[in-house]
Amino acid sequence: MNKKTRKLTSLGFGLLAALALSSQARADEVGSFDREIEYRQSVMTLYNWNMKPMGAMIKGKRPFDAAVFARHAKDLSAVAGLDLLSGFPEDSEDGETDALADIWLDFDDFQQKYADLQEASRALNQVAASSDQAEIKAAFGKVGKTCKACHKAYKN
Amino acid sequence: MNKKTRKLTSLGFGLLAALALSSQARADEVGSFDREIEYRQSVMTLYNWNMKPMGAMIKGKRPFDAAVFARHAKDLSAVAGLDLLSGFPEDSEDGETDALADIWLDFDDFQQKYADLQEASRALNQVAASSDQAEIKAAFGKVGKTCKACHKAYKN
Repeated sequence: MNKKTRKLTSLGFGLLAALALSSQARADEVGSFDREIEYRQSVMTLYNWNMKPMGAMIKGKRPFDAAVFARHAKDLSAVAGLDLLSGFPEDSEDGETDALADIWLDFDDFQQKYADLQEASRALNQVAASSDQAEIKAAFGKVGKTCKACHKAYKN
Repeated sequence: MNKKTRKLTSLGFGLLAALALSSQARADEVGSFDREIEYRQSVMTLYNWNMKPMGAMIKGKRPFDAAVFARHAKDLSAVAGLDLLSGFPEDSEDGETDALADIWLDFDDFQQKYADLQEASRALNQVAASSDQAEIKAAFGKVGKTCKACHKAYKN
């Protein structure tokens, strides 16, 4: 190997090392919101766990069971009370997520939409214990609307 | 194709169809607890989300922030109040889960261990607002013990 070849080879390894480092840096960067993403997706799973059986009862796809419905309404309200927004740090749309960057372009609106869900969930929990099916149905419908409003604006 | 060959061929297809059906049945069976598994794993993620930063503060790995600690204690208590046991229907140890079959061999004990976590989480939430660091530390330690007790007995 002559001097020039050695130089080029060394340059080649240098470039490879730099590329490897930059790729690692990118991976670290992308991976840095993994914990937040897993958190907020878990919260969504818990919404779904409670919303789905209530929805099935409202739609008559399964028999209405007041105790089961009330339990899900209670849990939904508890989950909606969690500090979900801490799972959405600035620009955490990188990674395996359906969250749109629009969230951080208008975080106040995102926050308001979350407050709407909290409010609607609390209201549903309050009427769930009553025997007024029309009221329950209306309250459930309102929760569903807050889900959709947020997903439409901020979910892929 | 003579009669015998036809018979054998038909038998072959019959066997294949039977195997395919049985494999599908098995997949359906194994897959039938996916929703429960996703639910309970999401609940665990939420425990971890709250326990980890509190643990870091207790161990002095990050500065103690009373407001952040209290918020996590509140959320942990809310998550511990969920109907987690509905995510553990009889024999739902099939699938991508670390849950051991032992859970259903002594469900009363499993239930008791969950009640211990609920109790310890409520207690931590109550002392979190106080400025007594020793009390907070003790209460946090008790929660950790209930986690470990259940994982040791029932988690892979």
